[in-house]
Amino acid sequence: MLTVGVIGCGYWGPNLIRNFTNLKGADVRICSDLDKGRLEHMKHLYPSLAVTTDYREIIKDESIDAVVIATPVSTHFPLAAEALEAGKHVFCEKPLTQSVEEGVRLVELADEKDRTLMVGHTFVYTAAVNKVKDLISSGELGDIHYMSTARVNLGLFQEDINVVWDLAPHDVSIMNYILGVRPVAVSAIGHSYIQPGIQDVSFVTLRYPDSILANLHVSWLNPNKIRSTTVVGSKKMLVYDDISSLEKIRIYDKGVDVIPHYDTFGEFQLSYRYGDIHIPKLDEAEPLKMECQHFIDCIEGARPRSSGRHGLEVLIVLDAIDRSMKQNGAEIEIEYPKTLG
Amino acid sequence: MLTVGVIGCGYWGPNLIRNFTNLKGADVRICSDLDKGRLEHMKHLYPSLAVTTDYREIIKDESIDAVVIATPVSTHFPLAAEALEAGKHVFCEKPLTQSVEEGVRLVELADEKDRTLMVGHTFVYTAAVNKVKDLISSGELGDIHYMSTARVNLGLFQEDINVVWDLAPHDVSIMNYILGVRPVAVSAIGHSYIQPGIQDVSFVTLRYPDSILANLHVSWLNPNKIRSTTVVGSKKMLVYDDISSLEKIRIYDKGVDVIPHYDTFGEFQLSYRYGDIHIPKLDEAEPLKMECQHFIDCIEGARPRSSGRHGLEVLIVLDAIDRSMKQNGAEIEIEYPKTLG
Amino acid sequence: MLTVGVIGCGYWGPNLIRNFTNLKGADVRICSDLDKGRLEHMKHLYPSLAVTTDYREIIKDESIDAVVIATPVSTHFPLAAEALEAGKHVFCEKPLTQSVEEGVRLVELADEKDRTLMVGHTFVYTAAVNKVKDLISSGELGDIHYMSTARVNLGLFQEDINVVWDLAPHDVSIMNYILGVRPVAVSAIGHSYIQPGIQDVSFVTLRYPDSILANLHVSWLNPNKIRSTTVVGSKKMLVYDDISSLEKIRIYDKGVDVIPHYDTFGEFQLSYRYGDIHIPKLDEAEPLKMECQHFIDCIEGARPRSSGRHGLEVLIVLDAIDRSMKQNGAEIEIEYPKTLG
Amino acid sequence: MLTVGVIGCGYWGPNLIRNFTNLKGADVRICSDLDKGRLEHMKHLYPSLAVTTDYREIIKDESIDAVVIATPVSTHFPLAAEALEAGKHVFCEKPLTQSVEEGVRLVELADEKDRTLMVGHTFVYTAAVNKVKDLISSGELGDIHYMSTARVNLGLFQEDINVVWDLAPHDVSIMNYILGVRPVAVSAIGHSYIQPGIQDVSFVTLRYPDSILANLHVSWLNPNKIRSTTVVGSKKMLVYDDISSLEKIRIYDKGVDVIPHYDTFGEFQLSYRYGDIHIPKLDEAEPLKMECQHFIDCIEGARPRSSGRHGLEVLIVLDAIDRSMKQNGAEIEIEYPKTLG
Repeated sequence: MLTVGVIGCGYWGPNLIRNFTNLKGADVRICSDLDKGRLEHMKHLYPSLAVTTDYREIIKDESIDAVVIATPVSTHFPLAAEALEAGKHVFCEKPLTQSVEEGVRLVELADEKDRTLMVGHTFVYTAAVNKVKDLISSGELGDIHYMSTARVNLGLFQEDINVVWDLAPHDVSIMNYILGVRPVAVSAIGHSYIQPGIQDVSFVTLRYPDSILANLHVSWLNPNKIRSTTVVGSKKMLVYDDISSLEKIRIYDKGVDVIPHYDTFGEFQLSYRYGDIHIPKLDEAEPLKMECQHFIDCIEGARPRSSGRHGLEVLIVLDAIDRSMKQNGAEIEIEYPKTLG
Repeated sequence: MLTVGVIGCGYWGPNLIRNFTNLKGADVRICSDLDKGRLEHMKHLYPSLAVTTDYREIIKDESIDAVVIATPVSTHFPLAAEALEAGKHVFCEKPLTQSVEEGVRLVELADEKDRTLMVGHTFVYTAAVNKVKDLISSGELGDIHYMSTARVNLGLFQEDINVVWDLAPHDVSIMNYILGVRPVAVSAIGHSYIQPGIQDVSFVTLRYPDSILANLHVSWLNPNKIRSTTVVGSKKMLVYDDISSLEKIRIYDKGVDVIPHYDTFGEFQLSYRYGDIHIPKLDEAEPLKMECQHFIDCIEGARPRSSGRHGLEVLIVLDAIDRSMKQNGAEIEIEYPKTLG
Repeated sequence: MLTVGVIGCGYWGPNLIRNFTNLKGADVRICSDLDKGRLEHMKHLYPSLAVTTDYREIIKDESIDAVVIATPVSTHFPLAAEALEAGKHVFCEKPLTQSVEEGVRLVELADEKDRTLMVGHTFVYTAAVNKVKDLISSGELGDIHYMSTARVNLGLFQEDINVVWDLAPHDVSIMNYILGVRPVAVSAIGHSYIQPGIQDVSFVTLRYPDSILANLHVSWLNPNKIRSTTVVGSKKMLVYDDISSLEKIRIYDKGVDVIPHYDTFGEFQLSYRYGDIHIPKLDEAEPLKMECQHFIDCIEGARPRSSGRHGLEVLIVLDAIDRSMKQNGAEIEIEYPKTLG
Repeated sequence: MLTVGVIGCGYWGPNLIRNFTNLKGADVRICSDLDKGRLEHMKHLYPSLAVTTDYREIIKDESIDAVVIATPVSTHFPLAAEALEAGKHVFCEKPLTQSVEEGVRLVELADEKDRTLMVGHTFVYTAAVNKVKDLISSGELGDIHYMSTARVNLGLFQEDINVVWDLAPHDVSIMNYILGVRPVAVSAIGHSYIQPGIQDVSFVTLRYPDSILANLHVSWLNPNKIRSTTVVGSKKMLVYDDISSLEKIRIYDKGVDVIPHYDTFGEFQLSYRYGDIHIPKLDEAEPLKMECQHFIDCIEGARPRSSGRHGLEVLIVLDAIDRSMKQNGAEIEIEYPKTLG
């Protein structure tokens, strides 16, 4: 039985408490928050749960195996570092930290202490994203040409991070996961229309190995809520629409074939393939439950799907996007630290 | 009565012949094509129409006032130049020419000869685009923040021009027209997945004056046919979906207001406005008919909406996109020749 | 402060407990269920709530003002009658009872005892249905011609009532409410494909006064979940789609005008009007909260929107539908008892 | 080579002339219309076509093998009868005639004269309808439970026939064709909101053998144009949406299974099956071309898909719908004459 303490009971923390509580392998014993009202609410929902305004009580508690962190981004690093130092396993909400340096330090610290560090990139636990990954890795889509995503809506504006750090972690995490590789370069243009200095719209192009391009559109200023990802392969194409409840993935048996033997007059021959559309039924399990169970499994030896390294790679991409935006879209080559291999 | 000769009876030419024929102010007397089969077909449809395989017969014919050119792009410049030199008014399909230099030369030549030069940017004659223009210029949308467009489908691949020259002329023409200004810089990333050296996918970001951004996604490799333009203003937002037959424009009474007087603690106050959606009824007149009538009106003195200058500005943007793609998305400042003022 | 006891904690009861608990004017003191597991769950959620397996404890409790009934339909009559006899106000889930006679008796009993009897027809508390009612009563739609509804999905099959009694109460309640009148005749055809004797599909046509027709399609055997209502008026038309989260009501400025003065040749002149579409922003308050608050207001003197009489009228229509189905769709004139005036 | 004469060059006639003209096996030699303007237009389009205002010239012309009739419904019978009497094959637009008696007489006349009589029920030549037929006859959908259709839009009102005779012929023809049987009873309720005496809205329920129900909603008074057919089978369900250009048929691997061996307590066990959705790619050939070719094939011996008998069966159903509407929806048993076997 894994004993768990949760730091942060604001927006997302209660979801984590609920899920870990419902799992057989975990026992959530204590939570902390600076806001006493939130603690009272938690106590009301879970009468046996201990509460505190001092997170150190959790970290010092030797009976606690794992610390779950659901606080503002700026506090992720000190809290996670302190917990790892104290020998706890750590589950931290995304993005992992505010800077690449902090992220590298956390990953190294988890290695040194031989503890599990996992980041809350929930999408990699969804049935839809795993279906897309399967379709790619099985070769059903053929070679992947490019991806294009839109993750846009009206607000909610954040005051401490821009739209890239708010929304793009999902897309980068998903794309790294489904492709199984990480981007090598990025070019991004953004603008701050509402809050000076905090981009609310950004257009990002990532280059992955093998000439795979990925274009991301993230915005807090869009009339519609859209969460869509198009994946274009040489054999088939798909659209993953996370807003749709029953038809999240549409697979198009469509493509362009290059006819290999063409005559010397240089006539380039193309053949278009238009085919059926298939909408697979997806399992409807709650991704957060999968993710929490996965954290337990990893502590028992499994390899984390959204490990500290995965979260760090996402961070490095976000950082490069920021730098490209400052240079008006100049392409930035992304360098990954040795820690990431 | 304007007497008209048409060069090129392939894909688009017959539409132009049909429209000019149906207008009261024009008389299509002759058409030319290198393919005798096409000429026979035209003769079958319009028994009184003269046909020829030699376009020079049209240009030399003193009874012809205006020449309409619907041939491959590479031939636009020589044909239009020859026609203008011969004192004809010229209606030329888009894009105007293959190079900026050629385009400048044509515009100057039309000025010298005092002839009308018009380019077939049909979208600026649609009810939908004009509705969007009205909504912007009346101030109903507020200040324009940014636009994002998708013009994607599967094929049809061109062999002589890339996807930017095939599809982006529409978007650039539309955006220049509805904003009433032209872009100052461009950044674009594209790739050739199918035909070596001919980009089939491109992501383009244009900077217009007043911090207006416009992001374009053009692709010959997309599972769905999409022609959508989102315009985000400070007061309202709209989506123009050219695929929809009855609901082309949706106006969202949605926005973010910055509350002006906020306290010294620097708390930035935002207010979200969610409101009704309005779908205006649009007139269903054929845009090409409007365009052909407009050509007649311009010869009689009206100012061309899709003038040679408009077509040249589009050309200059396309050329800058190509250059940015070659430099991996580096931002290119766009310079307009003196001819354009 | 209204003191409340709830009988039945299965599917819907907990929603009623939650809503009454959250209202300032009500105090939910006790709930009953035959299933001890459900009671334990309620106790866990609301530690101060008394629980019992014997509903009589609630009815006999003199400190309880109002009884809320959320049990299977067959028990509605005895429970509600016993509660009214004991001088309680009663909120009963829909449909009110299993038979018209029982319904009449309950309405009369509430009158005799001068207690409030309200039926849980939640839809009449939604923003969407009230918007439709406003559009009708303000005359904006013109004279109402006809309505057509679809309330279909796959399952969930009930074992004790047919699809008409399961789904049509919503439609009949909504239509009676928005029109402000009740139907005078009904014709219905249904069939039992899965469970012998329990119709799972039914097509119903109601005749309202002034030649208004309403066609209902209810089904447990449909590939899509649809909840749509089309209202056709002489001036405008609307579609109310309850599945849509953001665009529930679309108002079409469309219609057919009869040109009044036409010539003696009997040429009938019609003029078609095609216009804008308008999608009003609707308030998103939880209807059940509105309904529970309304129950409190009614006890304090307001006139119930979904009164016992409203529930009884719905019941009478359902009963007539059943009879028409037994007679292969023969039209049944609906008679309302004197109690309903 | 089949020689063809066409009577009626109004709305639909020119489509028939175009299609027969383009087929290799047919030679359209002459057409007639009362309106000289229409004849001039036909002459302009097809210079070698003879034209006449007197249809008798066509019927008397011994060089003509087949007569195509595209005139108002009231003239179908006399024209077709005269043509058959003269020994011509006849292709007549739908509905075949104005009365059942007339239809019977034409079918018998074609038999007597051993000529082909075909009715223009175009939908049975579409790829979509044939795909639905295949899915049913192959057993992929299982036993068919019921069908429900909507064929509604705003106008265009007819002055001589009601909405049932205007729109329902399509549905009845399609359903008879895909099921391979004809309905045994009908119940219908309609109303005339705009033109006195001419129903503009009708709700129809047909009973086919084996307890298959089919519900039709036809209307000239609907805000949206809808042409949809839902087919519910015991194994799978499908929706055929004729408005959609690329996704006309959606097949849902969804259903309800009755678990056969249930315990003696009478607990009825159901199992719900939710599965993938499949959208087959359909061939895009013009149905009218298929239909015209089929007419030629039938004269050469093939069995007509939309034979005179098929058209007569549709007519008999329309007639029964009219009678049920006059009796406020009373169920009418449909009797088919001996001629139909």
